Amino acid sequence: MPPPPTPHASSPGHDGVSVTGSGSSGDAHGTTAVVGMVGGGQLARMTQRAAIDLGIRLEVLALGADEPAVLAGAVSHIGGPDDLAALRGLAEAVEVVTLDHELVNAGHLAALVAAGHRVHPGPDALRFAQDKLHARTRLAALGFPVPAFRSVANAADVTAFAAVHAWPVVLKARTGGYDGRGVEVVGDADAAASVLARGGGWLVEALVPIATEVSVVTARRPGGAHVTYPVVETVQDQGICVELVMPARVPPAVASRATDLAEAIAEAIGAVGILAVELFVTAPGEVVVNEVATRPHNSGHATIEGSVTSQFTNHLRAVLDWPLGDTAMRAPVAATVNLLGGSVPTDLADRLPRALVDGRVHVHLYGKEPRPGRKIGHVTVLGDDAEHALAAARRAADLLVSPEEAPT
Amino acid sequence: MPPPPTPHASSPGHDGVSVTGSGSSGDAHGTTAVVGMVGGGQLARMTQRAAIDLGIRLEVLALGADEPAVLAGAVSHIGGPDDLAALRGLAEAVEVVTLDHELVNAGHLAALVAAGHRVHPGPDALRFAQDKLHARTRLAALGFPVPAFRSVANAADVTAFAAVHAWPVVLKARTGGYDGRGVEVVGDADAAASVLARGGGWLVEALVPIATEVSVVTARRPGGAHVTYPVVETVQDQGICVELVMPARVPPAVASRATDLAEAIAEAIGAVGILAVELFVTAPGEVVVNEVATRPHNSGHATIEGSVTSQFTNHLRAVLDWPLGDTAMRAPVAATVNLLGGSVPTDLADRLPRALVDGRVHVHLYGKEPRPGRKIGHVTVLGDDAEHALAAARRAADLLVSPEEAPT
Repeated sequence: MPPPPTPHASSPGHDGVSVTGSGSSGDAHGTTAVVGMVGGGQLARMTQRAAIDLGIRLEVLALGADEPAVLAGAVSHIGGPDDLAALRGLAEAVEVVTLDHELVNAGHLAALVAAGHRVHPGPDALRFAQDKLHARTRLAALGFPVPAFRSVANAADVTAFAAVHAWPVVLKARTGGYDGRGVEVVGDADAAASVLARGGGWLVEALVPIATEVSVVTARRPGGAHVTYPVVETVQDQGICVELVMPARVPPAVASRATDLAEAIAEAIGAVGILAVELFVTAPGEVVVNEVATRPHNSGHATIEGSVTSQFTNHLRAVLDWPLGDTAMRAPVAATVNLLGGSVPTDLADRLPRALVDGRVHVHLYGKEPRPGRKIGHVTVLGDDAEHALAAARRAADLLVSPEEAPT
Repeated sequence: MPPPPTPHASSPGHDGVSVTGSGSSGDAHGTTAVVGMVGGGQLARMTQRAAIDLGIRLEVLALGADEPAVLAGAVSHIGGPDDLAALRGLAEAVEVVTLDHELVNAGHLAALVAAGHRVHPGPDALRFAQDKLHARTRLAALGFPVPAFRSVANAADVTAFAAVHAWPVVLKARTGGYDGRGVEVVGDADAAASVLARGGGWLVEALVPIATEVSVVTARRPGGAHVTYPVVETVQDQGICVELVMPARVPPAVASRATDLAEAIAEAIGAVGILAVELFVTAPGEVVVNEVATRPHNSGHATIEGSVTSQFTNHLRAVLDWPLGDTAMRAPVAATVNLLGGSVPTDLADRLPRALVDGRVHVHLYGKEPRPGRKIGHVTVLGDDAEHALAAARRAADLLVSPEEAPT
């Protein structure tokens, strides 16, 4: 592979934030809208793909030129999500600001709203996704089913909770956790003390007997109009979502209950754009709300090929207050397997052609360095039944990242 | 809509050609391959969309920063297709060079090949698509069915041809014609003289009694492995393709014959990448070869949503000599209607939300100024039957470009 060409220069943009990218220099003949996204990760990258179709110019606030969305050609403002000047620069360049991730200063977003910018999700909905204690407390107050929980300050609080709900219990960091980080199952007071010693705010939850984990992805416009995708079954490994099956293999009553809950939460918190609700289905078939994300979500990746309209297209349409696209499936089943960086270096350029030998496989690579445990892409296969589609997707994923499948 | 941000600066690239674009400044962590495309039009734009999925960095040689592929974020080398230094600069930056259009100097491409660069299609296959007389002559020599034809220098040659084949006849410019330009049906010697007076080389053809026009899109790897899409029915208006239906509504024997011809032509001319063959189906059901294009083609646009693998993805896979993707359909029928700029200005930003009210509609906009007759996008709808899918696609197209449907 040849080396990348000479880096290009960037010019001063708004508020001193550099603005680069091909789209920024053209005229706006065919541009239907300009959307800003805070963050330049894989969700922004896949949103860029959707933006191209609809003539939307996507501008992202990214940490650097090597972020996935910037590599995919989104117009880039370089800056951090806690930099108010950078956020202002993005907001002034676009019609509506949305988010690639939740690690954005909610106070800064409120300042953008106060300055008259459209921001979706807004600061209130964002706080829901940022602070697990806030989300649990509000969901419980609104009458949604959640695991028993309480805020804890020390191991004694955890022990008191376990006296009622039994060990083991689950400790969750209020903020900043993802992909299993900030979630710990602890069996006694010593283990709890050890986790709490890391600092930060924590809550404790009863350990729910999970039969299946599912996710519901819904897209909601400012006025409340919404569309919802079929319930997705998610398979977690050490807290990281590793596989999806759409539709979930759960009874219709469970799917219907999960869908109703997700749509009610979107309405209750005034979400605009994609809202993803992760839920536990318990052994007796009860549905309990786990987490809420107010942006395109890993559990919605199967919608790219599996649905008439992808979650990324519908996210753009929702935040622009445009009519939403059909969420019907294009095949009986869509199976997605995430690609996680392995313990050994992975040369994707060498491996990709081998994974493509199965012509049904859809590979999505995010342009990220394959560090261990990091999501660097996903594979989707459509089919008539979950077992065969999953088997094909797993096989392709192994060919791409498994150490055992390294080319010789 | 806010104004576009300040244009960014560009830095000197290879051979003094400026290179800009977000992808050019990142590192190559997740980059699986680097493909160069001569031309930055809508075919390159839709190839950029496909490149994002597979971690491919697409670099285009474009005339300016407002070309469709550059607006979509492809890394851009600014220069013309007849500029050898610019072509060399592109070739040196990438692993393989391919084409967005045929208006490229074949001698320059031969120079790139001589210098050791991979170029697909190669100069020989390109000449086939560039020069209609060369194509007709070689196809006839290879035994493929083509309309009766001859090269003409003056009106007397046309009259002599018409004495055998009857007026009216078809005059075709050897080179440079597209979307109906360079194709004239003439009824007498005076009309022929008037066309020939425009200058350039011309051939004359017998007017074939066309029942249906169809196109076959096939993707071929350097070693000959290939996949072919279902035959597409194309509807032309004044020489411009305005609608597609996949699969074509023709008898199985006709579809099979058309497919065989396209695959045989791809093999005969050593095409690599997408090859599209346009054919006439005559009233008695004979199949006659009309035109050959050695690149992704307008008649393949329905493959984006209609097929498991789009023509753009398979073009990239073919020129990189990677395994090709499944060409099976995802629905019984896919209907595509092209969006042509109308006689009045079209504000796509105003019109797009109205077209999206039908949630099944897939709109693709190319970022082009909507000049009269210019292809500025297309709409695809999948369905169970051609009539309903076409009706929905036509309705959305009218909402986007018809003067009668302008918002009030």
